[in-house]
Amino acid sequence: MGPHPAVAAIRLAVRRVLHDVLRDATRGRAAPAGPHLRGGGTEPPLALVACSGGADSMALASAVAFEAPRLGLRAGAVTVDHGLQPGSAGRAAEVVSRLACLGLGPVDSLAVTVGRKGGPEAAARDARYAALDAAAERHGAAAVLLGHTRDDQAETVLLGLARGSGTRSLSGMAAVSGPGGRYRRPFLALDRQTTRKACLEQSLPVWDDPHNADPAFTRSRVRHEALPSLEKALGRGVVEALARTARLSRDDADALDAWTDEAERSSRADDGAPGELDVGRLYALPPAVRRRVLRRTAVAAGAPAGSLFARHIEEVDRLITAWRGQRAINLPGRVEARRQGGRLVIRQS
Amino acid sequence: MGPHPAVAAIRLAVRRVLHDVLRDATRGRAAPAGPHLRGGGTEPPLALVACSGGADSMALASAVAFEAPRLGLRAGAVTVDHGLQPGSAGRAAEVVSRLACLGLGPVDSLAVTVGRKGGPEAAARDARYAALDAAAERHGAAAVLLGHTRDDQAETVLLGLARGSGTRSLSGMAAVSGPGGRYRRPFLALDRQTTRKACLEQSLPVWDDPHNADPAFTRSRVRHEALPSLEKALGRGVVEALARTARLSRDDADALDAWTDEAERSSRADDGAPGELDVGRLYALPPAVRRRVLRRTAVAAGAPAGSLFARHIEEVDRLITAWRGQRAINLPGRVEARRQGGRLVIRQS
Repeated sequence: MGPHPAVAAIRLAVRRVLHDVLRDATRGRAAPAGPHLRGGGTEPPLALVACSGGADSMALASAVAFEAPRLGLRAGAVTVDHGLQPGSAGRAAEVVSRLACLGLGPVDSLAVTVGRKGGPEAAARDARYAALDAAAERHGAAAVLLGHTRDDQAETVLLGLARGSGTRSLSGMAAVSGPGGRYRRPFLALDRQTTRKACLEQSLPVWDDPHNADPAFTRSRVRHEALPSLEKALGRGVVEALARTARLSRDDADALDAWTDEAERSSRADDGAPGELDVGRLYALPPAVRRRVLRRTAVAAGAPAGSLFARHIEEVDRLITAWRGQRAINLPGRVEARRQGGRLVIRQS
Repeated sequence: MGPHPAVAAIRLAVRRVLHDVLRDATRGRAAPAGPHLRGGGTEPPLALVACSGGADSMALASAVAFEAPRLGLRAGAVTVDHGLQPGSAGRAAEVVSRLACLGLGPVDSLAVTVGRKGGPEAAARDARYAALDAAAERHGAAAVLLGHTRDDQAETVLLGLARGSGTRSLSGMAAVSGPGGRYRRPFLALDRQTTRKACLEQSLPVWDDPHNADPAFTRSRVRHEALPSLEKALGRGVVEALARTARLSRDDADALDAWTDEAERSSRADDGAPGELDVGRLYALPPAVRRRVLRRTAVAAGAPAGSLFARHIEEVDRLITAWRGQRAINLPGRVEARRQGGRLVIRQS
């Protein structure tokens, strides 16, 4: 008799990703020079699991512990103590011992200090990834595996939708991201219910972070209020539709970025300084590509990306598409967009 | 003292659109040959308001009645009796008399028979647009104006998101659409509250369609449950963010379609029959563009667009990106995709 379907599902998802990790590591990609290489390269590549002790990442840890040795990989884990809740250090120690019991090693517990920049959720995330990056470097890990599920992906798409900043903001989390493609998310196509079931079937104790249910956090409100209400209005397929939207949007955004790369080069004014664009060539571009070129040029001139809104770019665009002698447009970061004859000049004043 | 800000806002929005209508009509675009042209072209162009008697379209009718004569346009209206509720004929007659009181003319009441195809909402919409198209042709109208607001746009984006079929499905309703750009939506940037307020200020009686509050209809659930819950979780800017997503997505989808046009031509196999594509050229395209080319080729070969899902296209795509001797892929409509050496052949079997 094989494993329970939920356990089979998490193992299959992990096996596929570890295959890729192994292939990339032996090609020399995504495997920064680490101790195992300095020592002569005889030690097998290491995959690290980022584990909070919750169901998603405990399921991930169990599947990695099972699959990695079969593929000739070493498997370790890292748990991050954000120090935001009483008893968090003790909890981290407990998670470490559970991970060690699964046969993972090395297992690190990393205490971090969470700042305030960008709000509590962004600050915690920044501190966490900095710690994971440092651990990956220290151990020379070939990959860091993250337990994000399809449900997390759907939530991320809704959070992006609330920003209303277009296709890239709807593209959620990538299956492969970070420096050298270090971060891998094997569970993006699995639902949270499956990871929970897999833990139950394997008798793995899991920890439910009270922050995940705290309505003070936007993601928690999206999870417990917005998504259930969307499902009630639109049907049970919403989570899957959102996850599919993420994949399609990511591909679309990538294609448009590639076009923008080329358009950025080709719309430079002949013999022009940086920030001088040819109006005729800009005009010939589709609006979606032209506005991306304008946005990039403004950012390159010193406008802070986070303060540059769609309405700014639309106003600059009208210097090209609806020219009737407008004055220079002021953008954030003391950047100015001005039309000078057949040229559009975007630079810091 | 000028008009109330809500009344000023609806008039400004209408004035801008009527300006465009007039410009396009005098250019001969978007004005199908109608009686006023056959008669020697002396009558001014006609703008028709599509009016249900609800707040949005009554506000629209009032603003068109005010602005059109000032721009030298005639303004009429059409109300559609869907025959779905008891007393709907009497109600339509009442709406006609209110529209006539605003000074609009001609004013038509059109009774339609709603079929069943695609569900009750789609069937009612199809019947309505067929009646509006017929009225526009009959009167030789230069434009048909629709009262959709930013709130309607946000709902449409959420409905598209639930389909999960990508950037085009997130692009909502266009400001200009239909044959020759006949349909115009002046209120896409105004919120529903403004149209309601404008009716109140002008003492216009409005009718609240009970269907709009009936939870049997998906749009009604989106309006009364999903959107308020999204606003609660994500903040009051959600409607605006969704409307902005529609605009950005539409531009992105248009740009990618333009790229696909070109890629479709350039990836045809040399001397190949229709449906024969060159694998090397397809491989060089970004995935988003390549998959659009594959989808179009499959539809051109006879696959019904509505039955062709992302997973079908992904499987065909693997004949190019992950070739390991797969068998032919069966697509809906007896269409088959098969790799033959350096060619991908998509045709009906």
